[in-house]
Amino acid sequence: MSAADASSSFPITPVNRVKRVHERGRYDHKTVYEILDAALVCHIAYVIDGQPYCTPTAFWREGDHLYWHGSSASRMIRAEATGIPVCLTVTHLDALVMARSGFHHSVNYRSVMAFGHAHKIEDEAKKLRLMDNFIDRIYPDRSKLIRQPNAQEFKATTMLGMEIETASGKIRDKHVADEEEDYAGVPAWSALYPITQVLGEKSECERQLPGLPIPEGMAEFQPGTPFDVLLAKTYKQRFGG
Amino acid sequence: MSAADASSSFPITPVNRVKRVHERGRYDHKTVYEILDAALVCHIAYVIDGQPYCTPTAFWREGDHLYWHGSSASRMIRAEATGIPVCLTVTHLDALVMARSGFHHSVNYRSVMAFGHAHKIEDEAKKLRLMDNFIDRIYPDRSKLIRQPNAQEFKATTMLGMEIETASGKIRDKHVADEEEDYAGVPAWSALYPITQVLGEKSECERQLPGLPIPEGMAEFQPGTPFDVLLAKTYKQRFGG
Repeated sequence: MSAADASSSFPITPVNRVKRVHERGRYDHKTVYEILDAALVCHIAYVIDGQPYCTPTAFWREGDHLYWHGSSASRMIRAEATGIPVCLTVTHLDALVMARSGFHHSVNYRSVMAFGHAHKIEDEAKKLRLMDNFIDRIYPDRSKLIRQPNAQEFKATTMLGMEIETASGKIRDKHVADEEEDYAGVPAWSALYPITQVLGEKSECERQLPGLPIPEGMAEFQPGTPFDVLLAKTYKQRFGG
Repeated sequence: MSAADASSSFPITPVNRVKRVHERGRYDHKTVYEILDAALVCHIAYVIDGQPYCTPTAFWREGDHLYWHGSSASRMIRAEATGIPVCLTVTHLDALVMARSGFHHSVNYRSVMAFGHAHKIEDEAKKLRLMDNFIDRIYPDRSKLIRQPNAQEFKATTMLGMEIETASGKIRDKHVADEEEDYAGVPAWSALYPITQVLGEKSECERQLPGLPIPEGMAEFQPGTPFDVLLAKTYKQRFGG
């Protein structure tokens, strides 16, 4: 691996090395970031008093940092604010794969496990900026339309960040792969079914002010739009790349 | 709470008590099981050498036990087989909710966090039965069509189980909920966008035996079918309830 390659990949350590079906492993920033930036919800593993917890939450990426937020009174947020190790995982389920043996039944997926230590964002200007980015990363330019946080909301919200110390991606993206002798020998109908998370038809707030136009940034939020593709687009609109 | 109610709910402990937005918390078996049985993929938090990991994997429920499997050589599987505490979490993302302040932006979701200690299924007959259930829980009666595991596959696969020692569900299922003064005072277009995971059009294996009919059990696997609704149905076909 050249120096240039090394600088655009995460270091491979005993923590992040993909051990099972290692040919599915991805360590380059580009692949890992694409999987992260196409997701809104992650699952975060953390430990309190020896008990592991796995909590779903919304997140986003800026450079080599991941951010999420929560109530300042939340057990998860208070624990993570102390700088504990966390593992933030994103999974896109892409297909069901039905094979001729149970062993080769599978799913197609794209996942990332990112490892680091959470920290609380103390700087108030940065925290405000992150709050705006969190909204705009999903809904283009929306932070300019909405009311800014009041003092109580600002205090009640804790913003957390994490440098991605290391990470790995894992991808399965192929069709049925059976044992050679089973293709002819096992008369089990086999197929792949794609799975996609899609937007439905919008439902406007019943108390919408009369005549308020749909913001330009919502043009791509159409019924049937794959949510991962949409999020990758709105991410690029906000952060480029 | 009557004795009858208590017997159909999980005990509320410091571990599973829903602290933030506690009115979203659910502890009754019915709600928790419905959320679990409508999912294929969960995320499991576990700890190795003080490092938390969050690994996505396929799972299913039988009674008050959850099951998942993996390669016998997998770090996760080997660690979990020793009986360590785990937290198994399922999340369905149901809608984006755009409000008039950042604070009230939200998502609708159904989630469950289930706590217990993983154990390895040692009994070989039970392990075989679980392997079949895992397939049939997704694809009705498919275990009868496919080749059964050979000795090598059987040995290479470890089946894990976990009694749900306690669990909590959490649900947000409502429209935009803004501060009263913001409805008239903030001219920000607000709406809810449903999000659904749906099946796409099947793609048959290119090496399908000629003339092989689509199994009856696949009749409901139609393009556009919500995957959570489908899984809830195939679950009931296999396990009733």
